[in-house]
Amino acid sequence: MTFALPPIEAVTDVRLEAKLRHKIDNKTKPVGSLGQLEDLALQLGLIQRSDVVTFQDPQMVVFAADHGIAADGVSAFPQAVTVQMVANMLAGGAAINVLSRQHGFALQVVDAGVAADLEDHPQLIKRKIGHGTKNICKNPAMSEEQLHAALQAGADIVKSLPGNVIAFGEMGIANTSSAALLLNRLTGIALKDATGRGTGLTDPQLRHKRKVLMLAILRHPDAVEPLQALAALGGFEIAMMTGAMLQAASQRRVILVDGFIAGAAALVAYKLVPQVLHYMVFCHRSAERGHRLLLDHLKARALLDLDMRLGEGTGALLAWPLVQSAARLMNEMASFASAGISGKESVEAAMTPP
Amino acid sequence: MTFALPPIEAVTDVRLEAKLRHKIDNKTKPVGSLGQLEDLALQLGLIQRSDVVTFQDPQMVVFAADHGIAADGVSAFPQAVTVQMVANMLAGGAAINVLSRQHGFALQVVDAGVAADLEDHPQLIKRKIGHGTKNICKNPAMSEEQLHAALQAGADIVKSLPGNVIAFGEMGIANTSSAALLLNRLTGIALKDATGRGTGLTDPQLRHKRKVLMLAILRHPDAVEPLQALAALGGFEIAMMTGAMLQAASQRRVILVDGFIAGAAALVAYKLVPQVLHYMVFCHRSAERGHRLLLDHLKARALLDLDMRLGEGTGALLAWPLVQSAARLMNEMASFASAGISGKESVEAAMTPP
Repeated sequence: MTFALPPIEAVTDVRLEAKLRHKIDNKTKPVGSLGQLEDLALQLGLIQRSDVVTFQDPQMVVFAADHGIAADGVSAFPQAVTVQMVANMLAGGAAINVLSRQHGFALQVVDAGVAADLEDHPQLIKRKIGHGTKNICKNPAMSEEQLHAALQAGADIVKSLPGNVIAFGEMGIANTSSAALLLNRLTGIALKDATGRGTGLTDPQLRHKRKVLMLAILRHPDAVEPLQALAALGGFEIAMMTGAMLQAASQRRVILVDGFIAGAAALVAYKLVPQVLHYMVFCHRSAERGHRLLLDHLKARALLDLDMRLGEGTGALLAWPLVQSAARLMNEMASFASAGISGKESVEAAMTPP
Repeated sequence: MTFALPPIEAVTDVRLEAKLRHKIDNKTKPVGSLGQLEDLALQLGLIQRSDVVTFQDPQMVVFAADHGIAADGVSAFPQAVTVQMVANMLAGGAAINVLSRQHGFALQVVDAGVAADLEDHPQLIKRKIGHGTKNICKNPAMSEEQLHAALQAGADIVKSLPGNVIAFGEMGIANTSSAALLLNRLTGIALKDATGRGTGLTDPQLRHKRKVLMLAILRHPDAVEPLQALAALGGFEIAMMTGAMLQAASQRRVILVDGFIAGAAALVAYKLVPQVLHYMVFCHRSAERGHRLLLDHLKARALLDLDMRLGEGTGALLAWPLVQSAARLMNEMASFASAGISGKESVEAAMTPP
């Protein structure tokens, strides 16, 4: 089975954009004084094709999977933590649970390829592609068939969920390794720069990780196209998020992108269908250096920069109230005309040299 | 009448700090991976003297006043906009109304010294010290008596309000001028660097503002102590916020500090009683350059950096959900022990050279 890339409309609409800009500029505030939130309001209006933005049934989806390369000691935590953290999420104790409750997101955890069998749970979506990827120092992470199954599963999951906004997060010990490799392969950013401490490596551990990743990248010299790179270097959760993001954009949903791993999926999706980017809100800039470089490559500016490096989707949900604020400010603020407030022009007369 | 500085306790408590740090570090996440939110959770715990942080009745108070120096053309907007924006706030149409509604803050607007008489309104607190300050290019902004009345009014207002968290914002055409002058006088930061575009000056207007402010600072060479500087160079809203912040800290309330003007009040309060800083959360870093320098001076790192320059308290309320998240994460997340998750230590054994 081959995953068919869903059609994604560009959000460019010159007339609507002018209308939105005019509405934002005539709110009772100095032009531009809401900074990044004004660009965000514009983007939301373009996505929803309206100057009144509303959100329904926001969804948080955490894709979990294991990585064969974990066996080579590239993470500060053992592989068992992936399944333990999935259990923690299903029990309601993880950071992403706290934030989902705070912000009213429905939380689903997807078994995209955890290296253990999981019991049924109402919040668990079982779409396991395999018991972890192969060790990419020796083999491609997944077969072509597995890749397409993962992309399709991601798209299917989005189709099955309601709402017009969807946040993507992940859990997978060693998955910053895959993210770093994809970043290097798809952008040319040096592997050394793309490789960071993940969940908290020491200096010697980081040096070790860099050596391991250099071996991995040398093992797959021909995997240069986005899907080839994803199969060779990626993870099941990254591939599934890629398919999910493409599907979400094709349905004109707002996509909340979390940190480095979700960013790597966003990067692959962008390389496949560039206009997917129009639907993405980059929610936070992680402490992981590769993520900063990834955002620069996408010319994206994140909403938050709090030195976080937790993943799960935590950065996405922490930024959510800002997305809501951008919408509400555009929807609800009075205009200069409606409030009877003097414009900037009238000050020129008041200017007298001291 | 002389305003008596309220007693403010330092929040230092070595045993509690160790307890809080231990709780935060044992949450199911890599140590430090919540970045700035971990420091914030620690601060909140120290303020509330508890490892469970709760908020009641959050208050948003906007202090409005006019500035005589507006006559010298230092703002992009005419002075009349102050009272017009107060009316807009009382009618519910300003940005701060939208954000107060979004986040459940009770909003009060204080007439600290607007240059017009205002009608009664349930959300208006009338504590007018004067119809705008004097033009500081020629005279001290206010008399010593007015200064103390303003400080006292700020403290009284806080005493009259419920809750354990209070956000401070302001409205006052030309008040970045006072903020820049206070920053220069109290920290030694060059006036040129402290002076910015405010609500949106053009290059020639900015040059003009710098000349005017240079005249103003030269007019008050002896106003070097915090209260002297505040009387000579400040504004009624800044003085009132200063008194309010000191009172809020003395009651161990969490103080949400907005942008440059609220930051200037925070700076004066800090110079008067340094431990007031323990209670302050610096919510956003404004596009106004002086604010960045002010935060650096206070060694404070703001939660948001969205290129905003609106004031009113908007930056404070936009950051509020992050403050709530920090508290909730500390209160609600599972620990490694309670969730049965492997620690970092167990990975050492898994490290094998590739």
